Amino acid sequence: MSTSSHAFHLASRPVGMVKRSDFDYTEDSLPDPGEGEMLVKVLYISLDPAMRGWMNEGRSYVPPVGLGEVMRAIGVGQVVESKNPKFAVGDYVSGLFGVQEYAISDGRGVTSANPALAPLPVYLSTLGMPGMTAYFGLLDVGQPVEGDTVVVSGAAGAVGSVVGQIAKIKACRVVGIAGGQEKCDYIVNDLGFDAAIDYKSEDVRAALKEKCPDRINVYFDNVGGDILDSVLTRLALGARIAICGAVSQYNNEGGVKGPANYMALLVDRARMQGFLVFDYADRYVEAAIEMVGWMAAGTLKTKEDIVEGLETFPDTLLKLFKGENFGKLIIKVADE
Amino acid sequence: MSTSSHAFHLASRPVGMVKRSDFDYTEDSLPDPGEGEMLVKVLYISLDPAMRGWMNEGRSYVPPVGLGEVMRAIGVGQVVESKNPKFAVGDYVSGLFGVQEYAISDGRGVTSANPALAPLPVYLSTLGMPGMTAYFGLLDVGQPVEGDTVVVSGAAGAVGSVVGQIAKIKACRVVGIAGGQEKCDYIVNDLGFDAAIDYKSEDVRAALKEKCPDRINVYFDNVGGDILDSVLTRLALGARIAICGAVSQYNNEGGVKGPANYMALLVDRARMQGFLVFDYADRYVEAAIEMVGWMAAGTLKTKEDIVEGLETFPDTLLKLFKGENFGKLIIKVADE
Repeated sequence: MSTSSHAFHLASRPVGMVKRSDFDYTEDSLPDPGEGEMLVKVLYISLDPAMRGWMNEGRSYVPPVGLGEVMRAIGVGQVVESKNPKFAVGDYVSGLFGVQEYAISDGRGVTSANPALAPLPVYLSTLGMPGMTAYFGLLDVGQPVEGDTVVVSGAAGAVGSVVGQIAKIKACRVVGIAGGQEKCDYIVNDLGFDAAIDYKSEDVRAALKEKCPDRINVYFDNVGGDILDSVLTRLALGARIAICGAVSQYNNEGGVKGPANYMALLVDRARMQGFLVFDYADRYVEAAIEMVGWMAAGTLKTKEDIVEGLETFPDTLLKLFKGENFGKLIIKVADE
Repeated sequence: MSTSSHAFHLASRPVGMVKRSDFDYTEDSLPDPGEGEMLVKVLYISLDPAMRGWMNEGRSYVPPVGLGEVMRAIGVGQVVESKNPKFAVGDYVSGLFGVQEYAISDGRGVTSANPALAPLPVYLSTLGMPGMTAYFGLLDVGQPVEGDTVVVSGAAGAVGSVVGQIAKIKACRVVGIAGGQEKCDYIVNDLGFDAAIDYKSEDVRAALKEKCPDRINVYFDNVGGDILDSVLTRLALGARIAICGAVSQYNNEGGVKGPANYMALLVDRARMQGFLVFDYADRYVEAAIEMVGWMAAGTLKTKEDIVEGLETFPDTLLKLFKGENFGKLIIKVADE
């Protein structure tokens, strides 16, 4: 075992797009777990759009990462030392371990990961926050019914790909919006979406008109911006919009652009509703059981985009905001 | 009885603020009602923010007024000739009679107005569309519960004043946003709101912070724009926003400004929902009965701002968009 741990600390609050200089990369000697704590060797780190928000000051659903603190991240790791009776050396665990090689944890918010049931990276994708976000956002907020047209943006991403597949399982017509031909082919050919729209090469508004002849009953929004505005022009009566994220807007220097077409909510008697996956924590097990069943049946596929090396963190994070990842973006920190 | 009828016809689709030249003012001989029709002498015409939208081309909840057509308006009048078995000469009626002195109607969408129960103009305000809009928008979409903080914009207007009074009846803390000291005094002193914010002289965001110490559970939005954005910074968890209108945006030449702070919906697990009063048509009677009861008990007050003379129509309509009316804006066309 190493005697030191590398970590990325937040050095400054980014203005616009995140830069490598917004972080300090440090090496420190391994910390000792105190009473009730354990030392976790981080194996995989999840890279999520929400990270951009955590770097900003101001009121949100969690406090911002403090300047000088280790950058917040969810990871999967293995317990290498334990003074916590609930976790033993050798256990695989998932939790908020941060962007670092070794983490001290008191076990709060930590869950077990069983590599015999699913590969460890899947605990950061379909069986982790992205999958839970897709499951509850679609089913609880979007409330699709058989025959509905469901549109999802970021459709090839960790959340969007699960949203679309669950909507297919629920017998909906599913149209995914993604960037590039490869992603569009993937969601239609591999995941079974009914249609795809490539926002990088198509006029999204015209394409929605063509591909959603019965208009849109449910829109699961990961991106905000112009795509949200285009969808608003195509709502069906009583449509439900689940606001999951606005990744197109997170790095705007001029602030977020609001949806100019929001008055469509009135014309179409529609609603736009935000949600946070943490509110569903007491139902994660229920969702995991159902999704493991779908994965076993082959109706729910999962895809991870794994980049090697903790030191790549700032550049790998940028891939996310540029839409360059294909599947759940994960950094592999160490071998299992 | 006159042998001719004056009318305002839509001459051109307004760009930005409505102008007198967007209308043609005509005089024609009185039309004869055909079989099943009646001739209505218009007494009062309702001026509503929605009129601005009716003048625009494009998809909405009703077709636009066609160029050359009589401008659409709800009115109250008296039947002066009838070949419709449901309505007799002398009956007082309310319906879409247009901006004119005499209207032909086949009786569809026409309801009776009884001046013994309430003055005729009240059938265009609290017992008309504005009152119904307030009642169903607040209770059905906003879903206030006792102790909630309810904020309403356009608070001294025909809709907003009813929203705030019903919220008080439902034991909520009510804060109204209105323009000018006189309107603010009115909603607090005469209507019993807990507090008022004068958007013309106060920093709305700071005032909301001060006057909504427990944040905002329900926001009834008549105005959109910067005020909606300010409210979004002050939502309580699980807040409901009822989108009724966006009068601040209707005359924008550059199009509607979307709510830049809409991601607060996510942070606060809140929803923003549009509605149209017409969807509640089968419950108007229920609402009217309850509101007449509140009016009789003195807990629901109604205020009309009556301007004399059909020929004032274009200028009177502008009062609405400039916020110069005080109470439901109505044109008196003829004596009862």
